[in-house]
Amino acid sequence: MIRPAELIQRKRDGEELPDGELAELVLGYARGDVPDYQMAAFCMAVFFRGLSPRETYVLTDAMIRSGETIDMGAALGRKVVDKHSTGGVGDKTSLAVGPIVAACGVPLGKMSGRGLGHTGGTLDKLESIPGYRVDLTLEEFVAQVRDVGMAIVGQTGDLVPADKLLYALRDVTATVDQLSLIAASIMSKKLAGGAQAIVLDVKVGSGALMHTLDDARRLAETMISLGERAGREVVCLLTDMDQPLGAAVGNALEVREALATVRGEGPADFSELVLDACARLLALSDLGVDVAEGRRRAEAAVADGSAEAMWRRWLEAQGGTADEDALPEAPVRSVVTAPRPGFVRALSAIGIGLAAVHLGAGRRTKADPVDHAVGIVCRAKRGARVEEGEPLAEIHARSDEAAEQAVRDVLAAYDLGEEPPPERPLLLGAVS
Amino acid sequence: MIRPAELIQRKRDGEELPDGELAELVLGYARGDVPDYQMAAFCMAVFFRGLSPRETYVLTDAMIRSGETIDMGAALGRKVVDKHSTGGVGDKTSLAVGPIVAACGVPLGKMSGRGLGHTGGTLDKLESIPGYRVDLTLEEFVAQVRDVGMAIVGQTGDLVPADKLLYALRDVTATVDQLSLIAASIMSKKLAGGAQAIVLDVKVGSGALMHTLDDARRLAETMISLGERAGREVVCLLTDMDQPLGAAVGNALEVREALATVRGEGPADFSELVLDACARLLALSDLGVDVAEGRRRAEAAVADGSAEAMWRRWLEAQGGTADEDALPEAPVRSVVTAPRPGFVRALSAIGIGLAAVHLGAGRRTKADPVDHAVGIVCRAKRGARVEEGEPLAEIHARSDEAAEQAVRDVLAAYDLGEEPPPERPLLLGAVS
Repeated sequence: MIRPAELIQRKRDGEELPDGELAELVLGYARGDVPDYQMAAFCMAVFFRGLSPRETYVLTDAMIRSGETIDMGAALGRKVVDKHSTGGVGDKTSLAVGPIVAACGVPLGKMSGRGLGHTGGTLDKLESIPGYRVDLTLEEFVAQVRDVGMAIVGQTGDLVPADKLLYALRDVTATVDQLSLIAASIMSKKLAGGAQAIVLDVKVGSGALMHTLDDARRLAETMISLGERAGREVVCLLTDMDQPLGAAVGNALEVREALATVRGEGPADFSELVLDACARLLALSDLGVDVAEGRRRAEAAVADGSAEAMWRRWLEAQGGTADEDALPEAPVRSVVTAPRPGFVRALSAIGIGLAAVHLGAGRRTKADPVDHAVGIVCRAKRGARVEEGEPLAEIHARSDEAAEQAVRDVLAAYDLGEEPPPERPLLLGAVS
Repeated sequence: MIRPAELIQRKRDGEELPDGELAELVLGYARGDVPDYQMAAFCMAVFFRGLSPRETYVLTDAMIRSGETIDMGAALGRKVVDKHSTGGVGDKTSLAVGPIVAACGVPLGKMSGRGLGHTGGTLDKLESIPGYRVDLTLEEFVAQVRDVGMAIVGQTGDLVPADKLLYALRDVTATVDQLSLIAASIMSKKLAGGAQAIVLDVKVGSGALMHTLDDARRLAETMISLGERAGREVVCLLTDMDQPLGAAVGNALEVREALATVRGEGPADFSELVLDACARLLALSDLGVDVAEGRRRAEAAVADGSAEAMWRRWLEAQGGTADEDALPEAPVRSVVTAPRPGFVRALSAIGIGLAAVHLGAGRRTKADPVDHAVGIVCRAKRGARVEEGEPLAEIHARSDEAAEQAVRDVLAAYDLGEEPPPERPLLLGAVS
């Protein structure tokens, strides 16, 4: 029997905990034997003292052992790849990457989550598609990946219950933003999901969990090391989240933009990120191609329409409509115009994300409903030159009042100046 | 409405919290609106970040406001004094101080607690007296102080419920040993109890919560400042707890030693501390005497038998017997003898305290019963010269096996050497 109060004290005092005792603390918590209040104190002690690489791995492994695991590779007789983003504003990458990669012949089965606060969630975006089922059974999920080539679902089966509990606890005890706990949370789910190779997109900037490139790099290195200890290949992209990704922020609006990108008509920055992620996924797959060849194949799948055909097959297999006109539309539209000429020096991701939440596109608390139709389309991004009265962004709102508030919010998120801003690429680095 | 997670985060990040929000966090916790897990994370953040003097006062004041308060002074029409020790091994000071001070005409009504771990509790000691009632009602308590001159009871009424909850939580989340939280816990109870002047005995050493004189001084200064903000007079003694206080450790054994001290027949170190505390209490009282005159009156009350008479009146008023022979006695006695000649260089308070717990005199967990008869009497204290085979201590045990184990434990707590140890007085300092 472990004594949780003693383990809390040892962590509090900076000790590295023995593997067995740390694992038992996590498993005991998942079983309900260790109460929330002891785990909350433990997480806060970890916030101040950190976890060693070894402790981070033991935590991750114990979280995985708290529930079921899936061996998708064995079920398909194929090497299975996965893609995950740490989350940001306007991040609909998975929606576009999935069909392109699947069209290239690499199966992709992905479990996603819902959004909270200014960060959107892939499931909320998919639920804006009439009929789309996020709750496949584990068998349906595996069968669809095998027969159709791809599926994106909510978490299915009893995967990593310790993480569900722990994340909910961290959310209300100010212990979310701790690097080891973030890495363990993400990687436990990816490893339990059974992908042999994983591309992780670590977002950096004001709209992301990691605010600096250094922090993002440390998180990437921690997750790669967790993957290696578990015998998986992991590549991390470090990408900008100071401004929203692409143009659209809001659920149905993002689905439209993802489809446009799959067709080769997406925004330049977002399309580039999608093709880069596809190239790296194909290079990690069992196709036996390098990143350059992966890139060529991804571009070809977009150009020849096979990616769009996969998009349709995927949505229809999962009960949704592939008819773009069936997506919900907001009744009120307003245009935010530039109050003076200048360059867009900055466009605050968190500012746009919170404006979208106020419109109803996201949740302030877990119980809030989501309005799938509303959102913001940012027409001018960082570096753009605009004249007075030219459109900066479009508001899609439920009411005039909401639209008026959003116009003010969005305007406040734009920083216009005389000089163009320094260059900041979307892809800030890659770690593998 | 406060948002507890936000307050936890601000404290975690080193902010000083606004008075109203901190108070509402504590009051919300006492009402059950703020859950244990958030308070646990908050306490751990406080462990690392500390509380400012202002925050410590706000916490103390909110804990007091969570329940009832007593105005003993108004009920008696007298200035009421109180005495409190931070707890240690063999600390039966209150049992001896009470009757001496009361015999000098100063009313003393004290609420005490139970022991846990190596530290004994005054209530457990009193419960070794057949018939003694620790659970007087608030009315009985006030009436006894008024009519008899003194009473020592368990906590009565709904005083400081927030402290009860918070202390129980801190005990299981490794957040006990934080100076501001300790000060707020002690002072909230003293201030709610209504004494206008308080003598605090802050124990320092291996057997106490404060291990260094510096820490003890900081705790003393914090408590004095809390008292001043509440308009009370507070004096702190800093006293040694590297070795047990007096000779007896164990409930009935300590009651006997307290009575001996009230009669003027107690151990020299303990008697000196008792008389010093009495002198300071009398100097703070409405008798209008200084410490020197207080000391003379306390010595006189011991010498002329009035203190012993008060002891009898007090115990009998509270339902207990004043017949010393009625106290429980342990069936097995063993003597620990010196294995070689030498000086007692050190006598570990925590070692003796834990040996007494193993004998059954204390609790390992809150649910454990206490054996009132068993314990240890330390005949040789630090600095004593002993010859081989001379007695170091007496064991009072329930069984031969327990006694044998205790002999080994007690021997391990004695450090015998060739040279006498450096002098270390019992009274290490006073702060006011």
